[in-house]
Amino acid sequence: MKALLLIAHGSRRASSNEEVVRLAEHVSRLDGDNFDIVEPAFLEIAEPDIVAGVARCVEQGATQVTVIPYFLSAGRHVVEDIPDALNRARERFPDVLIVSGPHLGAADTMPGMVLAAALGIDLRS
Amino acid sequence: MKALLLIAHGSRRASSNEEVVRLAEHVSRLDGDNFDIVEPAFLEIAEPDIVAGVARCVEQGATQVTVIPYFLSAGRHVVEDIPDALNRARERFPDVLIVSGPHLGAADTMPGMVLAAALGIDLRS
Repeated sequence: MKALLLIAHGSRRASSNEEVVRLAEHVSRLDGDNFDIVEPAFLEIAEPDIVAGVARCVEQGATQVTVIPYFLSAGRHVVEDIPDALNRARERFPDVLIVSGPHLGAADTMPGMVLAAALGIDLRS
Repeated sequence: MKALLLIAHGSRRASSNEEVVRLAEHVSRLDGDNFDIVEPAFLEIAEPDIVAGVARCVEQGATQVTVIPYFLSAGRHVVEDIPDALNRARERFPDVLIVSGPHLGAADTMPGMVLAAALGIDLRS
């Protein structure tokens, strides 16, 4: 079974973490049958943390976990902290394939998304 | 003349700020003739700050500035700090229409973008 793990930073604002949970739910609804499981996880502050997020996927039967770091820029969190946490998850679940993509800000589609968002703003409002 | 101002957080990592500058350039190239000017700005740490970013647009002739907060979640920066800075810019440039859209994480297209990014990851690599 295939899982998608969406890793966000985590915030002291519960509403901010809720946005991430709802985003994972939205992605799951949008997806056809590519991913059997879509789970959120948080680098710090909020729960579940990254290893716990992978564990949730594995408990539901995941044998592959695709990771998207929900970050806009390649700071220390993206370059060091998330890879370190994923390595801890790999040690705990050696039979599970865990592959991380680049952070979201590096996606080819980002410039188009920014432009579309800008064009959608009504200056008269 | 119409300007698009892309507001990022700003980082101590120069490469992270450079990503934002390059993104603004990429958006400008991608855009047809909707925006005459596309500029980056930073909430803190990096230059130009938000008022200086608006000033750069105005110096190039902008009479309208569309703002995209390049943030994924609605934390204090999005809810308080950016609106405060934009109000300072409005006081300094009272003849310029400055309208901010929601932060990028709230865009309708975000779930689709996350899914597309996840589907683009080659698990064999």
